[in-house]
Amino acid sequence: MNIINGNVTSPKGFKAAGNAVGIKKQKSDENMGPFESKKDMAVIVSEKPCTASGCFTTNVVKAAPVLWDMKTVNNKITGIVANSGNANACTGQQGLKDTEDTAAKLAALIGARAENVLVCSTGVIGVNLPMDIILKGVKSTYALAGDSYEKGLSAAEAIMTTDTRSKTAAVTLEIGGKTVTLGGMAKGSGMINPNMATMLCFITTDCAISKPMLDKALKYCVRDTFNMICVDGDMSTNDTVLCIANGMAENTEITEENADFEEFKKALYHINKKLAMDCADDGEGATKLIEANVKGAANEEEARKMALSVVSSSLLKAAIFGEDANWGRVLCAMGYSGADFDPMAVTIEFRSAKGIIRLMDKGTPIVFDEEKAANILSEHNIFIDMYLEEGSGFATAWGCDLTYDYVKINGDYRS
Amino acid sequence: MNIINGNVTSPKGFKAAGNAVGIKKQKSDENMGPFESKKDMAVIVSEKPCTASGCFTTNVVKAAPVLWDMKTVNNKITGIVANSGNANACTGQQGLKDTEDTAAKLAALIGARAENVLVCSTGVIGVNLPMDIILKGVKSTYALAGDSYEKGLSAAEAIMTTDTRSKTAAVTLEIGGKTVTLGGMAKGSGMINPNMATMLCFITTDCAISKPMLDKALKYCVRDTFNMICVDGDMSTNDTVLCIANGMAENTEITEENADFEEFKKALYHINKKLAMDCADDGEGATKLIEANVKGAANEEEARKMALSVVSSSLLKAAIFGEDANWGRVLCAMGYSGADFDPMAVTIEFRSAKGIIRLMDKGTPIVFDEEKAANILSEHNIFIDMYLEEGSGFATAWGCDLTYDYVKINGDYRS
Repeated sequence: MNIINGNVTSPKGFKAAGNAVGIKKQKSDENMGPFESKKDMAVIVSEKPCTASGCFTTNVVKAAPVLWDMKTVNNKITGIVANSGNANACTGQQGLKDTEDTAAKLAALIGARAENVLVCSTGVIGVNLPMDIILKGVKSTYALAGDSYEKGLSAAEAIMTTDTRSKTAAVTLEIGGKTVTLGGMAKGSGMINPNMATMLCFITTDCAISKPMLDKALKYCVRDTFNMICVDGDMSTNDTVLCIANGMAENTEITEENADFEEFKKALYHINKKLAMDCADDGEGATKLIEANVKGAANEEEARKMALSVVSSSLLKAAIFGEDANWGRVLCAMGYSGADFDPMAVTIEFRSAKGIIRLMDKGTPIVFDEEKAANILSEHNIFIDMYLEEGSGFATAWGCDLTYDYVKINGDYRS
Repeated sequence: MNIINGNVTSPKGFKAAGNAVGIKKQKSDENMGPFESKKDMAVIVSEKPCTASGCFTTNVVKAAPVLWDMKTVNNKITGIVANSGNANACTGQQGLKDTEDTAAKLAALIGARAENVLVCSTGVIGVNLPMDIILKGVKSTYALAGDSYEKGLSAAEAIMTTDTRSKTAAVTLEIGGKTVTLGGMAKGSGMINPNMATMLCFITTDCAISKPMLDKALKYCVRDTFNMICVDGDMSTNDTVLCIANGMAENTEITEENADFEEFKKALYHINKKLAMDCADDGEGATKLIEANVKGAANEEEARKMALSVVSSSLLKAAIFGEDANWGRVLCAMGYSGADFDPMAVTIEFRSAKGIIRLMDKGTPIVFDEEKAANILSEHNIFIDMYLEEGSGFATAWGCDLTYDYVKINGDYRS
């Protein structure tokens, strides 16, 4: 597997574009990140119909496009249209119709049926889409679609909300002598929580792979990546990860769990992990990326609960922002995670490029060098390592610190 | 039932005191609230041995004093000693010994056994207690104990951490021609979450009531009060609610669920609710009190889940701080609460002393007057009313907004 500088247009047969069609307020908005683009619509189209797979929010309240995609993802897919600036969530019956009309619009342009087009929306909740702007926008955005690196980047910028930077990834690998490419783009920032977030991720590939195998691979990858990040504990109504595969690499189709499948899964995992970490790192107001590693839990599920609980703790997140080695909040968060363990057997260490410091050793607090701890916590990437003696379960979760800017950004998001 | 201006010294036979013994750093600390007292130890003693009942944190990681109180609360109790500034949590075997030594010290002074004394600690996690200061402190604080209103108030001040004000309540009621009094004090502020918080609550009463009935009444009251508040979603290692009854009102002992029991329960509920709301209102950095009311849920448990999820949402809490009527975040939080319901049947209203505004009507968003909404949200007490059509379950939860000061307070709590 080779990591390349690419995005959704890197695989064969995919075109994309991002465009400013007027959904987002165009006034300069201090709540938007410094690199915020006012682009607000993206399209991705494939030369050939794609096998598709998706993972969606588990929120009982699902946005109209999520409801649409959950059934449509089982059809052959030729296009994806996504808008930012409006989530089309909590928008009643009208919202459902608007999603279908949006799909039908792109379908008409590419000679497909609405049922072959996936739709995603992100942004403000509870406001109906401005359909005149949306429909004109689909046409003008599709007209810009191309297969260049720049076009793919522009699409990635168009799905940003409070993201401060676009998020892309791409890899190539060899399958049966053929070069297979995967490319992805994501947006995250706020409302990021286990079982996904106001987080959209689109992955394209020219790999030939059957629907059951693609579903299996994506589900596996999302479980340990997008489902293991947390920014603020709020699970969005719109979370969607989509992967579409058009088979144009002409490799022998992957139809079983063979060596080719394992290679593909590795590549897909890399794309998911890179984009998930980018989302945590670019969490609203974030100044630090936190990686929580749990080792020695009773099992993987228990390890996941503890790792996620730690990166979700407002108290710990605020302490990391303050570069305060308040490790007691780590043990406390492990304790209310729902996992069962012996606190008297827990060892906790903080780590960064500046070094490593043990704060609790098998349940006993260690009098530590505050200066050394502060120096370690002055780094951007902070690792929290927790060792238990319950079993062999391990897990990693990613999050960010809680800052003044998070409050600022969310105190008045809609205006 | 009459609400009186009192505290833990109001019932017959109780003495209390608060004192500054030197556990808290005595330097002026901007992280402490403006009205913060440097008092850091409180004692409550009863002339006669008390029947006692307690509710404790469900965190797997329980502080040493919690482990002590969970077994000791089943004995007759003559005294309670509480310190702030150090939680004696995550302190290993030494922490357990320190708690017992603290109990033994007060016991020796009042002519009881360690097993007759309850101990509570709140403050920094993971640092062993300064036992020389603690033991001297127990002696000097007990020497100050008295039954005046001022002494009770002083005890309430001594358990504060980042609280900005002390929290007390008292009521009297008639039981069989006798006047029964209940008095209480609490501290809350940070780490406040369902199933309690770094929250300590001590309730004294001169009511004669059996242990099983006192347990039943306290459990009932805590479920709908202290277990329905949230400040930051972090469940503490130290949460404790204690109620001790010395019977000196000389009413016929309550030993069954009769009319007297119902009256006592009503009075106890008032004390719990008042102190729980005070904790939410005084949440770290809070500028507003949020009350979430769910009506028409499938059952009470589902209603509780939704009400708590709403007051726990960082996104909603930040929006309320910004006085932004972002009602979509309410529906979103209901949706990930774990409760099942039909989003298309949900009605949401925001309410305050300034008026009421409907934002979603049976699943359909309402285009509303932003100015009117902003005016309503400019109040301190904000009510969020959610109506469903699943059944007759209803519940209320209390929380506060998420502010810059929350981040500031928790970014560097230990220093």
